[in-house]
Amino acid sequence: MTGRPKPGEFELIARHFAPLAAGHALAFDLTDDAALLRPEPDRDLVLTADAVVAGVHFLPDDAPDLIAAKLLRVNLSDLAAMAARPRGYLLTAAWPSGTDENWIARFAAGLAADQSEFGIAMLGGDTVATTGPLTLSLTALGDVPRGRALRRNGATPGDLVFVSGSIGDGALGLRVLRGEIAGLGDDDAGFLAGRYHLPRPRLALGQALSGLAGAGLDVSDGLVADLGHICAVSGVGAVIRAADVPVSTAARAALDADPGRLATVLTGGDDYELLFTVPAARKPRIADLAERLDLPLTEIGEITGGRGVRVIGPDGAPMRFTAAGYTHA
Amino acid sequence: MTGRPKPGEFELIARHFAPLAAGHALAFDLTDDAALLRPEPDRDLVLTADAVVAGVHFLPDDAPDLIAAKLLRVNLSDLAAMAARPRGYLLTAAWPSGTDENWIARFAAGLAADQSEFGIAMLGGDTVATTGPLTLSLTALGDVPRGRALRRNGATPGDLVFVSGSIGDGALGLRVLRGEIAGLGDDDAGFLAGRYHLPRPRLALGQALSGLAGAGLDVSDGLVADLGHICAVSGVGAVIRAADVPVSTAARAALDADPGRLATVLTGGDDYELLFTVPAARKPRIADLAERLDLPLTEIGEITGGRGVRVIGPDGAPMRFTAAGYTHA
Repeated sequence: MTGRPKPGEFELIARHFAPLAAGHALAFDLTDDAALLRPEPDRDLVLTADAVVAGVHFLPDDAPDLIAAKLLRVNLSDLAAMAARPRGYLLTAAWPSGTDENWIARFAAGLAADQSEFGIAMLGGDTVATTGPLTLSLTALGDVPRGRALRRNGATPGDLVFVSGSIGDGALGLRVLRGEIAGLGDDDAGFLAGRYHLPRPRLALGQALSGLAGAGLDVSDGLVADLGHICAVSGVGAVIRAADVPVSTAARAALDADPGRLATVLTGGDDYELLFTVPAARKPRIADLAERLDLPLTEIGEITGGRGVRVIGPDGAPMRFTAAGYTHA
Repeated sequence: MTGRPKPGEFELIARHFAPLAAGHALAFDLTDDAALLRPEPDRDLVLTADAVVAGVHFLPDDAPDLIAAKLLRVNLSDLAAMAARPRGYLLTAAWPSGTDENWIARFAAGLAADQSEFGIAMLGGDTVATTGPLTLSLTALGDVPRGRALRRNGATPGDLVFVSGSIGDGALGLRVLRGEIAGLGDDDAGFLAGRYHLPRPRLALGQALSGLAGAGLDVSDGLVADLGHICAVSGVGAVIRAADVPVSTAARAALDADPGRLATVLTGGDDYELLFTVPAARKPRIADLAERLDLPLTEIGEITGGRGVRVIGPDGAPMRFTAAGYTHA
């Protein structure tokens, strides 16, 4: 019941995880009780945490490096949504006994690759044994110029609603991986699966939206639900046009084969794109930003008075979403 | 496989956990993507994380408020060991389906009580479902005046070795709870079990040791192993006298009944007392500090040249520890 790792497990930590902290001068190579980080002056800290469980959030035979990268990136996406710049992360892992060391090595390699890509380091963590499935928890830390975080509560009637990239790929990708979508070409199926496995946190966009967008968040629960979160916190309503929601070529192929998949696109989640509102007068600045970042930023609707999110379907009629799909409202 | 909580689970979070964040102006009542924290000027951040698993680190029938408090306090003890002041924490929880809401309420109440006691707030977190045992991960954040963190690497030959409070209670308490120690009075058994369930992070001591102690850490792996950590990182050796290691009245009763339990006291861990080294010239300042904090600070040995930790037994002969206990070296 003491729960301390066996000596062999300490060695595993040292061998695979200590190098992940070595690039960060103040993490002490994980040999101290805690990590030190010197905040830069005039910046606020941004902190977020997520947990994932084998068999619930990922499949036991998913690639370990992708599991690591997705967990990290989902948290970086939360930082992006607040206009923050990522600095580092702490990871706790509850491993089933008998976990293959090669699996751990590949998992650590996935973290190492993303540390390089995003310029961050592991700041600490913990490794324990579990009788259950592999359970991972990651806390990410970033910073933002003081008072400049992007919040959810700044949407105002008349604001335009924008979304980055393409919507629906992650949710369709999960269905492809489950074998629920047949008939797609290999390229399209691979693209959608890749979007599910490896989100791209929109960090440059998030930082650029500070002071430009009124409200913003990352699309994780699904476009309609997440716009609902902005509306609830801001005390406004919204209307979006399904026909304007940007979809990838692969998602378009899936929609052409079965238009009923539109509900998956609009409500499926796992997009990790940024959804944000801007005063109409700033529309040209969003176009400039899209060009500078080489990232589509698409206007999909408006903030309104009232409450709740209305979705206008491709046929011009309001859509109403149910667990099974959608109907006309 | 999407892993998002069901609507009822969102409600549980809101009902029990959102109030834990409400006291902190910048946590946004857990409604934003991430928490904001404004660092105070000229202070370094200190970050630490621990995970615990039901059936491994605590028993499923342990009191939920004590499980919560221990997880929080173990992390606060790591902050204390770095001379940091605690500011807040993030908690992720993987709940088995069908977890009793009353259990969750009592768990949250344990967090709330300790938030009051230590002046901290929940800054965020995540709640997910698991097919395995309840798995909790907590990241604690504190701060320390810039450059003044207490490290493990500052021990020098000739320094005196001190420890706070009493050693061995937690490890003996666990054995009491397992029914492995019979014949103790109820008061003694209850005291030891309480010390196992509810560590007292030595936060005031840790902060007072900044600039005073050369090296320090909290005793979690066991007194001998943890002194070994200081020696390894500092590149020194140490000798301690078992007869000088402070034990509680209850632990003394357990030792009197079976002197073989000395190995448990010295190596059992779960003490969460601070172990630190000070130059001999500062010994009077440690005595003053003990009086001011009303906390025993006991000299138990010295830092030496060489490598490793030597323990002098009560009979004056060197002790050597094995998994089964100890022998003369």
